[in-house]
Amino acid sequence: MFQTFDVTARPDAAPPRVAALRAWMKKAGLDAFLVPRADAHQGEYVAPCDERLAWISGFTGSAGFAVILADRAAVFTDGRYTVQVAAQTDPATFEVVDWPTTRLADWLPQAMPDGGRLGFDPMLHSVAELEKIRALPRIEAVAATNGVDTVWTDRPAPPSAPMSAYPVELAGRTAQDKRTEIGAAIAEAGASSFVTNQPDAIAWLLNIRGADIARTPIAQAFAAIHAGGTVDLICDPAKAAPVADHLGDGVRVVPAGSLMDLLADLPARAGYDPTTCPVAMFEALEDPVAISDPLALPKARKTDAEIAATVEAHLRDGAAMVRFLRWLDEGRPGDATEIDVVRALEGFRRDTNALRDISFETIAGSGPNGAIVHYRVNEESNRTLDRDSVLLVDSGGQYLDGTTDVTRTVPLGQPPRDIAHAFTRVLQGMIAVSRARFPIGVAGAHLDALARAPLWAEHRDYDHGTGHGVGVYLGVHEGPARISRASQVPLAPGMILSNEPGYYRAGEYGIRIENLVVVRAAERPDGGDDRRMLSFRTLTWVPIDRRLILRELLSPDELAWIDAYHAGVVERLSDRLDEGDMAWLTRMCAPL
Amino acid sequence: MFQTFDVTARPDAAPPRVAALRAWMKKAGLDAFLVPRADAHQGEYVAPCDERLAWISGFTGSAGFAVILADRAAVFTDGRYTVQVAAQTDPATFEVVDWPTTRLADWLPQAMPDGGRLGFDPMLHSVAELEKIRALPRIEAVAATNGVDTVWTDRPAPPSAPMSAYPVELAGRTAQDKRTEIGAAIAEAGASSFVTNQPDAIAWLLNIRGADIARTPIAQAFAAIHAGGTVDLICDPAKAAPVADHLGDGVRVVPAGSLMDLLADLPARAGYDPTTCPVAMFEALEDPVAISDPLALPKARKTDAEIAATVEAHLRDGAAMVRFLRWLDEGRPGDATEIDVVRALEGFRRDTNALRDISFETIAGSGPNGAIVHYRVNEESNRTLDRDSVLLVDSGGQYLDGTTDVTRTVPLGQPPRDIAHAFTRVLQGMIAVSRARFPIGVAGAHLDALARAPLWAEHRDYDHGTGHGVGVYLGVHEGPARISRASQVPLAPGMILSNEPGYYRAGEYGIRIENLVVVRAAERPDGGDDRRMLSFRTLTWVPIDRRLILRELLSPDELAWIDAYHAGVVERLSDRLDEGDMAWLTRMCAPL
Repeated sequence: MFQTFDVTARPDAAPPRVAALRAWMKKAGLDAFLVPRADAHQGEYVAPCDERLAWISGFTGSAGFAVILADRAAVFTDGRYTVQVAAQTDPATFEVVDWPTTRLADWLPQAMPDGGRLGFDPMLHSVAELEKIRALPRIEAVAATNGVDTVWTDRPAPPSAPMSAYPVELAGRTAQDKRTEIGAAIAEAGASSFVTNQPDAIAWLLNIRGADIARTPIAQAFAAIHAGGTVDLICDPAKAAPVADHLGDGVRVVPAGSLMDLLADLPARAGYDPTTCPVAMFEALEDPVAISDPLALPKARKTDAEIAATVEAHLRDGAAMVRFLRWLDEGRPGDATEIDVVRALEGFRRDTNALRDISFETIAGSGPNGAIVHYRVNEESNRTLDRDSVLLVDSGGQYLDGTTDVTRTVPLGQPPRDIAHAFTRVLQGMIAVSRARFPIGVAGAHLDALARAPLWAEHRDYDHGTGHGVGVYLGVHEGPARISRASQVPLAPGMILSNEPGYYRAGEYGIRIENLVVVRAAERPDGGDDRRMLSFRTLTWVPIDRRLILRELLSPDELAWIDAYHAGVVERLSDRLDEGDMAWLTRMCAPL
Repeated sequence: MFQTFDVTARPDAAPPRVAALRAWMKKAGLDAFLVPRADAHQGEYVAPCDERLAWISGFTGSAGFAVILADRAAVFTDGRYTVQVAAQTDPATFEVVDWPTTRLADWLPQAMPDGGRLGFDPMLHSVAELEKIRALPRIEAVAATNGVDTVWTDRPAPPSAPMSAYPVELAGRTAQDKRTEIGAAIAEAGASSFVTNQPDAIAWLLNIRGADIARTPIAQAFAAIHAGGTVDLICDPAKAAPVADHLGDGVRVVPAGSLMDLLADLPARAGYDPTTCPVAMFEALEDPVAISDPLALPKARKTDAEIAATVEAHLRDGAAMVRFLRWLDEGRPGDATEIDVVRALEGFRRDTNALRDISFETIAGSGPNGAIVHYRVNEESNRTLDRDSVLLVDSGGQYLDGTTDVTRTVPLGQPPRDIAHAFTRVLQGMIAVSRARFPIGVAGAHLDALARAPLWAEHRDYDHGTGHGVGVYLGVHEGPARISRASQVPLAPGMILSNEPGYYRAGEYGIRIENLVVVRAAERPDGGDDRRMLSFRTLTWVPIDRRLILRELLSPDELAWIDAYHAGVVERLSDRLDEGDMAWLTRMCAPL
């Protein structure tokens, strides 16, 4: 099993750890110290040695930070984690701050009315982040060694898994081709090189993968990409040894310990992206120039080979999902729990013999647990599946040829009609995005409302974005494009995005329906305008439970979409499933 | 009649005028001169004395500019005016540049490869505009007297119509109350005063109206609003004399000729909005501070009294529209032309005895003329109404209690089914916006796609925004909020917006359906979430031609909306129409 269900963090571990940090702060002459969730790579997942926020506070969520003062301490995290953070932290030690409603810039000047010295680890904060901290009145931001690392005596070693080459047949482009393109983009932006701390961008650029952290097959590394297309890859050389031939002449491996020296020796006008570049890396550069990460868009625009690969991964994953859904519908014991569900699903994915990892911890929320958007079941929260309610299952796999992410909500017994009503409204939003065709220039900000309008009409909404970018055997959450009111990045052919509206009633149930889609040039149909438009091609082929759909709420177009989708599921999966599974699937995919 | 149909501009007038300007340029030592459409107030409509672009080039559109070089000249305007600009300008004198596809910053460096001195009138260009011009390589932007005014020997005098007081019962707030609020907002923004060239903002602030230009009841004026709430109103004192008592002690009238002296004498940190403030006004200020126009949002958020007033204006206007539509359907002669339609419609509006002006030149486009988005019929373009096609009529009235703007597309004979199909798709978009309910924070950028999705699904679109702000007996086009992909201003209660998707087939037909709507706090229905949401209340009550609606394309929700809307038209207009009109209206409003 990849997923575990242990209750790892214990609130009672925090007080002595915080006391040790405070003693260190006093010696270091600091009045406060920042403990972010982020590591030096600013990614969503971190290695055990970088779990500083969890170690000091107990809180294991994927977003947030703590600030420790001599006599106060607070954990900042967002609404997704309200319940979790309260359960995981010691209330006598940590205040919980609802972030970003209250920002550090709001809280800290009140907590330190006379000002003072705020310590931070300059490898863990981006230039843009520090700018905001530096703007605080009377507070002096002081770059410091990391006090948590000093007092965390049994801190694990950093990961050092070997890199592997990613097949060019799946990537669709050689690393040399990508290096040449990115080098030219760096020159075009007026820079001599670009320095990055983003392991997934480096993995994409060099056609490599790694195993340093769970869930995302990256190798922790830094890089300096030169305008000429050569690359300095900065990491433990032992990690890179297995791919030495693959990397070839254009890539020089530089030991991680030499990072700062290398940066200091770069020619003038090295480029950096202030939203991700750590302060320490920026400060090592001479005459740096702020540019927008030149790897972000090319990485997001998948090649035809990457799309073909992930289509195959999604069909494989879809067949596993069908077997799982059938088990849930016909085979599971009457007293099955959420953990049983997670175990069964991972088992069906493992049965493909191609699963490298799950792409994130499976969310299996029965009844009221479904309303916790980022719910992760553990031994304490585990719940026997409800009767006459719904079960929300959000999960995905990492396969060499693709990363999947799919959510289905299924009935348990006979759910009341108002759940089916809400399910149908969520489905209408999900169909609206799936069917969307739109002109060049349209961004996620413009499409987000399509997914919400059916809920909005009933004075309902959901408090998360509609979709995120997804990699190909890389991060399941990938920038720069999203389907969200805040995302101004124009959608472009090759981008893979999730389409996952939901609806949640706290204490009652949660509904979410999620497919992945890929942006493609739209073909002009008869009667269409002479203009270039884009559309989404669906990647995910898994039945959407028709027992929860109220047919009479749907428009003719919506009915046609769902029937065609289900016909597509049957057609695409028929040679991947046995007779029993196909019989069940055919029933589940009957036209409405 | 307010509207005229003369063909005013003649391409053959341009060459001698351009020659005269070039002679002046040579004397003034200028290699190029900018002739914008804008006047010193940066508004959409200008007085005859400010029609410099039309005078020099022949082009009478509402957006664009010309640049005159010693041996070349060009008119820049957007796609709406492609046909018109070609017809109105002399091709031997003026190149036509498709703007903003090609910007001045693209064109000028090529036209003046060796650089040179570019003259501009600093009262006619905003600070933000000049910044872009100043960024051009090798081109020196030189503030100059206006050469067009020098060579335009029979230039009309500036307008000087008397101001009138706007009743506080309609405005809902006293001018003193508004002055106090805006003064406080100026102080809050860190400024000592705010200087403005925006006559509609001044009209709103002081509860005054004017008659200086056609279509918009404003008085041309400037103002300096002080943080304490007092105002210097800068205009011809004779104009302000009729409202002296109304203005009261807090408002000092300063002659227009003293504008620059007054600005120079303002205390330090006078505020200005770079997007609208003329360069000349900005440069007169000592130590100015850029702030966002503090009048824009309060003006856009109408009071309950303003909304009640405009509801009444819309019902009055709706009754006139019904009489017009019945005439079009039953009473018009067989050989009626577009001009006959415009005349008849203005007549029905005049019959209300309340019409102060039309709110813009009526667009009446039969068949292919309907596809010209900003079509204005004149004696040359006038067309006998087509058979078996559609007529697009976009029009509005200025009443003391409100400004209207409504578009209906009606069948002429038996239009082919594909027109009804497109009409239904446009209607679906218009209904989607009408029905929209949305959370606080949503901007026009987020809603625009709702109006387009039904067309997008068929690879179709329209090349204009979905909606614009509308005033109350003020501008029919008013900022800052719009329904457009570019508009990031959150919608707020009290904002009046148009909702006007369309579809156009060049050379064939045009379809547009437009209602005005006002943003209101949405009531939470049974089953709704505990969250604050907004919705649109419809202001326009005029039947939407059911003969063009393909019922089978509509969802149950859409059908319910259109039937309820038509029931609302009958109910609201029944005491304003005679028996014959009501019989016709009832037929037109029968449930689908």
